[in-house]
Amino acid sequence: MATSLDPRTGLPVVAMVGGGQLSRMTHQAAIALGQSVRVLAGDPAESAALVAADVQLGDHRELADLRRLAEGATVVTFDHEHVPTEHLRALEDAGHRVAPGSAALVHAQDKLVLRRALTAAGEPQPAWAEVRTVHDAAVFAEQVGWPVVLKTPRGGYDGRGVFVVSGPDEVADLLERHGTLLAEERVAMTRELSAQVARSPFGQVAVWPVVETVQRDGVCNEVYAPAPGLSEEKATAAQELAVRIADSLGVVGMLAVELFETTGGVLVNELAMRPHNSGHWTIEGARTSQFEQHLRAILDYPLGSTAMTAPVVVMANVLGGDAAADDWSGPGLDERVHHLMAHWPDVKLHWYGKGQRRGRKLGHVTALGDDLTEVRARAVAAARYLADGVVDPAFAFPDQEH
Amino acid sequence: MATSLDPRTGLPVVAMVGGGQLSRMTHQAAIALGQSVRVLAGDPAESAALVAADVQLGDHRELADLRRLAEGATVVTFDHEHVPTEHLRALEDAGHRVAPGSAALVHAQDKLVLRRALTAAGEPQPAWAEVRTVHDAAVFAEQVGWPVVLKTPRGGYDGRGVFVVSGPDEVADLLERHGTLLAEERVAMTRELSAQVARSPFGQVAVWPVVETVQRDGVCNEVYAPAPGLSEEKATAAQELAVRIADSLGVVGMLAVELFETTGGVLVNELAMRPHNSGHWTIEGARTSQFEQHLRAILDYPLGSTAMTAPVVVMANVLGGDAAADDWSGPGLDERVHHLMAHWPDVKLHWYGKGQRRGRKLGHVTALGDDLTEVRARAVAAARYLADGVVDPAFAFPDQEH
Repeated sequence: MATSLDPRTGLPVVAMVGGGQLSRMTHQAAIALGQSVRVLAGDPAESAALVAADVQLGDHRELADLRRLAEGATVVTFDHEHVPTEHLRALEDAGHRVAPGSAALVHAQDKLVLRRALTAAGEPQPAWAEVRTVHDAAVFAEQVGWPVVLKTPRGGYDGRGVFVVSGPDEVADLLERHGTLLAEERVAMTRELSAQVARSPFGQVAVWPVVETVQRDGVCNEVYAPAPGLSEEKATAAQELAVRIADSLGVVGMLAVELFETTGGVLVNELAMRPHNSGHWTIEGARTSQFEQHLRAILDYPLGSTAMTAPVVVMANVLGGDAAADDWSGPGLDERVHHLMAHWPDVKLHWYGKGQRRGRKLGHVTALGDDLTEVRARAVAAARYLADGVVDPAFAFPDQEH
Repeated sequence: MATSLDPRTGLPVVAMVGGGQLSRMTHQAAIALGQSVRVLAGDPAESAALVAADVQLGDHRELADLRRLAEGATVVTFDHEHVPTEHLRALEDAGHRVAPGSAALVHAQDKLVLRRALTAAGEPQPAWAEVRTVHDAAVFAEQVGWPVVLKTPRGGYDGRGVFVVSGPDEVADLLERHGTLLAEERVAMTRELSAQVARSPFGQVAVWPVVETVQRDGVCNEVYAPAPGLSEEKATAAQELAVRIADSLGVVGMLAVELFETTGGVLVNELAMRPHNSGHWTIEGARTSQFEQHLRAILDYPLGSTAMTAPVVVMANVLGGDAAADDWSGPGLDERVHHLMAHWPDVKLHWYGKGQRRGRKLGHVTALGDDLTEVRARAVAAARYLADGVVDPAFAFPDQEH
């Protein structure tokens, strides 16, 4: 099939499944490249649908909607992992370019498939087992000890579909509700890291500095770039691990390799084959953002420089907090944005335009500078203020040290 | 009138008259702030109309179209100066917020109004006269000598509406065609500078470093930030001049003060009250871009940091060149973008999505670094390659020195 270009501009048309903030920020990056992302959204109020010119309403689980999206597009890509793998294959069989391809993406869709592939490749990961019965879980727990982490192989994100179980009694109910599960040892980790790499069909790869990610209730909350105190040797090893995985799985586009750091080294937690929360800092913090790089990679353009623009970059998510409550009587969002800008003139805001709900990712802020403690204090205080409408000095200036 | 917020997001709705690249890049900046710019475009193929979700087709000279645009918007702003002043007053009289307001904007719309205001304020500018007759021109030329620069007071941009006349014979024809003209002495300038400032209704101002602008055939072609070799004293004086003008005219939003540098000091050439070509470098080169700052200013948000992100930033426009010709047989645009990215992985591309015509502003590129000669070489070579499909080493690495 010939490569499709937009007849109005002579440039590619990227079709993105999903109307969330990742699509929104990808569209923002596409504008600079002369493009306009075609978004498949489930609702006109979704984050990307509010800002993109070319929005198709539809369901990412319906093949007919996906075919309509792909028609005339240069390449189809994703802001989530929830498209049925058989639909991806059907698009590929019809001659559409899909990036990442179904054979690669399944490793981000299905945690059991990923575990098998990493075992086959000899890459470091937690001890794991496929659990179809309570007996399977008990056998695995004999090796690694209780508690054991059980995960639904598909469909989980932001901590959903993850269960820490302390004995066999809880397993039966989970199997009943979810079917086959992935069991993993509970890793004694020191922290979580993320290694991001972009890979093009040509095989070019680009890596950013490895970052530290801080979760709260299973949701990414803060990202420090580069990961503080990580030796160059360990950082390089993590980057090489990410590149090996991207190469061996044939990833096209962005790949985030989420890692547990332990005293014995890093272990692969899971993969995301798309722009990822751990890379939002790159918008201001790197010469090429993960969003632009994802477009470059899936279009087989040469990749851009990943050099950092400051020694330290901190991203803090704004998760719906007190100010998202129905009975909130403090300053409204627009007023909080005013105050944010007044207090932190150099903190960069990214607001996703979504309805405010507790715990929901509503936006993020990025701060840049030289000193992690100072930069983090600014980012966290600004994010906290947007979420809760208060500035908590104790939270803004922690005595945490790296 | 109560401030209108988007009920879906709780955030402002900026309506922008004009669908060109300035609207396009303003929309891109708005996305980060949780907003979506409402664009009034004359044609669905205009630069901003290709990427914005909320596009109204209409004519900026029709009051009815302007009223429709303003309905429910928080504030109305502009990507050009061509809206009739009486229509702006009508919107204001109807209670709409218009930024900049008609009383300020007229100084960017009408060069005679500007000259009178600067004379009244005692600000430095070229000798000038209002010319209604050939005799007026001759009297003025007796003071300043031929040739004299004649300008249409309204409607000119990118060198249009500017005539250098060497004697009275040519004046009659211009008066016949254009009516009253502004006559200016032909300034013996050393170079052109631009001082950009943002001002909010609250009165807060923010200034960026003064830049040098290089024109080709009356069109901005290159911008060097900061202006090389400009003493801190002169730079500060130019910034103070820009702030005085913004304050005295009551500008709201971005103001670009285009300056002629002469051996005797700077003279005000003209004003733009919107994001301006001389500020495109701020997208990557400053902590807050002119586009985000324009939004912040017109919404009366506190202004963002204007700190530079690198010691030297160079912007080069891509003006339609050989590759825009009908009989062009070299690499197409998409292929040129590929090569651009391969050759210059850290040059940032901004392509406007417009139809390619000779001399038209099609996009720009930005390069950052430490050394002007090196940074300029990269930016200019990249822009030239996009325009003409060739890399000319002589052009890419000039021996020009500052």
